[in-house]
Amino acid sequence: MKQSIPLPVLERLSILYTVLERLEKEGRTAVSSAELGRIMNVTPHTIRKDINYFGQAGSESGYSVSTLRNTLEKGLRFDVSRKACIVGLGRMGLALMNFSGFKDSNIRIEAGFDSNINRLETLKTDIELYPAYEIPEVVKRKSIELGVITVPPEAAQQTADKLIQGGIKGIINFAPVIIQCDNPAIAIRNFYVLEEFRILSALIQI
Amino acid sequence: MKQSIPLPVLERLSILYTVLERLEKEGRTAVSSAELGRIMNVTPHTIRKDINYFGQAGSESGYSVSTLRNTLEKGLRFDVSRKACIVGLGRMGLALMNFSGFKDSNIRIEAGFDSNINRLETLKTDIELYPAYEIPEVVKRKSIELGVITVPPEAAQQTADKLIQGGIKGIINFAPVIIQCDNPAIAIRNFYVLEEFRILSALIQI
Repeated sequence: MKQSIPLPVLERLSILYTVLERLEKEGRTAVSSAELGRIMNVTPHTIRKDINYFGQAGSESGYSVSTLRNTLEKGLRFDVSRKACIVGLGRMGLALMNFSGFKDSNIRIEAGFDSNINRLETLKTDIELYPAYEIPEVVKRKSIELGVITVPPEAAQQTADKLIQGGIKGIINFAPVIIQCDNPAIAIRNFYVLEEFRILSALIQI
Repeated sequence: MKQSIPLPVLERLSILYTVLERLEKEGRTAVSSAELGRIMNVTPHTIRKDINYFGQAGSESGYSVSTLRNTLEKGLRFDVSRKACIVGLGRMGLALMNFSGFKDSNIRIEAGFDSNINRLETLKTDIELYPAYEIPEVVKRKSIELGVITVPPEAAQQTADKLIQGGIKGIINFAPVIIQCDNPAIAIRNFYVLEEFRILSALIQI
């Protein structure tokens, strides 16, 4: 990926990729920046500008759906297979672990961790499960690059510390805590459902 | 809320609110913009500028944690109680329905919907459950303002249409589909876990 792609552009391109995947599944072969703009609620100009990060000249008449999807996939490294793990096997962790969308993706869930060893023993899954204290060793041994944190807030930072100790490169954090991390090379994404509800509350303004 | 708050500021203020909640729980009474900036990975200047949307002069020496939290809560309408519903009671929908964080929040999950009536009958929950075709009627009757979509992608748009028909004001969409909606007053937030993994993949760059 070009170092210079700003995060908002990367986020839009990631959404664009999902849109193109769907169009391709629906059998569509061509799409215009105008239609992509309508679907994504941005201007056609933004669509063309974002795509131009890959040197593919924007076109009003249309893009080939599969060519554009391929360009994004290669340009953004979405085609690289990544090993991932999930820490915290409560309802949310299990929902993610069983998410069917991983099957067609390049994300491989290689391990699940929980601090409750009794819980580990009762779970039925094909994914290897380990107690949380083994995170650094397992992440390192299996070369796991991405970690998902779905533990209670009070355990989130120490979970991140263990993942980082094992050499993790990216984290998706579902706990309502901002992970502190000295290494700027480690990418962290946060999602907290209550914050989404609050943002909606503010946006609907009543 | 002031109409003029840009979305990125609103998103940061929502995160700030979560941070302040945690600091308050930890017994902290004062906090500086420098410390908030460190926690949130933004500059102290950004913190002060964001808070200034509420006319509360930024301070380098410190804010009262509880006063600031209250100011945000009232200013952003986080104190208004909101009724919400969840459509799609698969693993993710159930994980959200059982999310313990709602207890201390102003979000009340008032109804769950699923198109599979057999599934509805097997679920044990205190929340009222309905078949999906009743969405418009139930949302209207109960004055539900916020809806969460956790259905398969092919059902996401029609689910949104039914919510909108019932008068929903805001939607959190977990399906990998961009909801089409003609009414700009309806706020929509999207979260798709595979997109988060893809963004991490691009950010870690290897």
